[in-house]
Amino acid sequence: MSSFRDAFLPVPPGGMIGILGGGQLGRMLSLAAARLGLKTHIYSDAADAPAFDVAAARTRAAYTDAAALAEFARAVDVITFEFENIPSETLALLAREKPAFPDVGALAATQDRLAEKDFVSGLGIATTHYARADDRSEAYAALADIGMPAIIKTRRFGYDGKGQVRLADPGDLDGALAAIRHAPAILERVVDFVCECSVIAARGRDGSFAAYDPPENDHRNHVLRRSAVPSRLDRAQADKAQAIARKIADALDYVGVLAVEFFVAKDGALLVNEIAPRVHNSGHWTLEACVISQFEQHIRAVAGWPLGDPSRHSDAVMVNLIGAEAQDWKMLAAGPGGLHLYGKREIRAGRKMGHITRLSPLSGGGCGRVGRD
Amino acid sequence: MSSFRDAFLPVPPGGMIGILGGGQLGRMLSLAAARLGLKTHIYSDAADAPAFDVAAARTRAAYTDAAALAEFARAVDVITFEFENIPSETLALLAREKPAFPDVGALAATQDRLAEKDFVSGLGIATTHYARADDRSEAYAALADIGMPAIIKTRRFGYDGKGQVRLADPGDLDGALAAIRHAPAILERVVDFVCECSVIAARGRDGSFAAYDPPENDHRNHVLRRSAVPSRLDRAQADKAQAIARKIADALDYVGVLAVEFFVAKDGALLVNEIAPRVHNSGHWTLEACVISQFEQHIRAVAGWPLGDPSRHSDAVMVNLIGAEAQDWKMLAAGPGGLHLYGKREIRAGRKMGHITRLSPLSGGGCGRVGRD
Repeated sequence: MSSFRDAFLPVPPGGMIGILGGGQLGRMLSLAAARLGLKTHIYSDAADAPAFDVAAARTRAAYTDAAALAEFARAVDVITFEFENIPSETLALLAREKPAFPDVGALAATQDRLAEKDFVSGLGIATTHYARADDRSEAYAALADIGMPAIIKTRRFGYDGKGQVRLADPGDLDGALAAIRHAPAILERVVDFVCECSVIAARGRDGSFAAYDPPENDHRNHVLRRSAVPSRLDRAQADKAQAIARKIADALDYVGVLAVEFFVAKDGALLVNEIAPRVHNSGHWTLEACVISQFEQHIRAVAGWPLGDPSRHSDAVMVNLIGAEAQDWKMLAAGPGGLHLYGKREIRAGRKMGHITRLSPLSGGGCGRVGRD
Repeated sequence: MSSFRDAFLPVPPGGMIGILGGGQLGRMLSLAAARLGLKTHIYSDAADAPAFDVAAARTRAAYTDAAALAEFARAVDVITFEFENIPSETLALLAREKPAFPDVGALAATQDRLAEKDFVSGLGIATTHYARADDRSEAYAALADIGMPAIIKTRRFGYDGKGQVRLADPGDLDGALAAIRHAPAILERVVDFVCECSVIAARGRDGSFAAYDPPENDHRNHVLRRSAVPSRLDRAQADKAQAIARKIADALDYVGVLAVEFFVAKDGALLVNEIAPRVHNSGHWTLEACVISQFEQHIRAVAGWPLGDPSRHSDAVMVNLIGAEAQDWKMLAAGPGGLHLYGKREIRAGRKMGHITRLSPLSGGGCGRVGRD
């Protein structure tokens, strides 16, 4: 793929960005591409993918349909992804046809929680204490090593708390292994953190880098509830978080937007929790608080355009609308803030249906403006 | 149409907004609708209409194709327009099928420069000095009445300076009449103005009203070059301009966004130049400087949603990219500001290809935040 990368010219206005995945992230990526005069072709296996409604071209097919994937790849100028759990055969097939960012190496490093933690630790970056738990005997050894409180997580295909079981007692381990269907797993020490935060950053094909001010994130039932800038991080911590994100992006030779999630320990230490190789829910506030959003930044990066200024002009609080909360759209539209609804036909419990971002004047606190270079 | 208006419930998320016209305004309306979870169906007679690329449904047909119009109307929940020169038969046909905003009365009042000026004057609002010039004898009488410097404009189908001839000398009149092909016209006194400004405002189906801070507008070759907020208007002038816009909108029982363009005379008087019954180029800065843009405001109004907060969080300067200027997209993308490209396939001299908006912190000057009620 690096041959593509070196040879490839920027996708000019009028060009076609192929996006695998048709949910709200694909939808907001499409809207951002349109702003730049770029078209999008959405590939999704869902009949009513929200991103289909705003795309110039649509393919509905399985993510393993080789003929449909090849046709899709031939119809676009560059390929990117809305989600990280792309089957490796799919990736290989697409990458044979067209440049695809982030590339197979970056996705492989982040699709597996154990590989991700090993990669981050290998860079000398602090993470939670963890150990492999691929079978029952490894799980027991890991628990003995790591101690309580602990959480067991499947290595692959987890998101929004799916595939995770927290152990209330060491005796819960057998039940937890059954709950995750004895899938290959990782056991982690539960961190007694002050808060969670994330860095949303973009890296261009030329190695340029632009990081947004880190938001502080609150989760409820493992699903992001609220992101706010500025966070409680002080300037030095925010700088450190951004430097860690850059170290990770550089090590992956990453192209596009990635999110690095952190626990902030009581002693102020930053522990990497996970890496998302894509635009991220905790960066949705950039749509209102910055001139260039995370979605546009990602499109710019994968299309080979210059990255935009990630500075924010306002403080911001983003709140997700989960499940039935979206039924209140009329009341929410009458209230303050920017309302976003994702065009999902069906409201389901726990489903991300939209979000609201409220701005307030830039305060002195937090990290304020963050440069690019 | 008023029966529709009274009976009609808001278009809920997932609903379909029909937009007649597929240029950049239709495109930005589509993008704004998508943010609210609404779909758009674009109707355009152009094969490569920029708005097609971001719409859930597309009809390419002539604006006089009764069958295509009826089918389009049946497929949507509400109809709106990107441009004002809709044939009256088209409007009547659409309005028989579905609610259409702004309605036929509002469009009729603004499609004809003479009717527009008569309407505005009839409300006791100052305009430039004008007179009807439908034929040669009327034109000569008008010139004698109004005096020099004067400009003659066709009553219908003019935009961006098309259908206008400024008289350098009274003896130019016959040549000017020939240049406008002896179309029914209006003769206006040319105002020696300090600056031009506009009010972009929305009126909801319930009579609610929300006006943006008036930008100051610079034209070049009759085409908008630059809009900036704050303008040179003082608070009292800005209030007066917004009050005039509201008076006009109320008198039309208007639904949607409209723009009222003013000349600011040397004595500070505000003279209405023209009314555009649609989103307006001089309001594009609202995409960056406000949480709710003029495009979203229009969609909210025609869909029967509550209007959003029109206040701005930043000062802003918007500059149009005309013709070959858009070739510099890569350099422009690397510079400051939000870059918008409209997805037009062909660059033509004088064609609006995109725009850039640059923000700066809210200054004390100008009108600052403007309320809604």
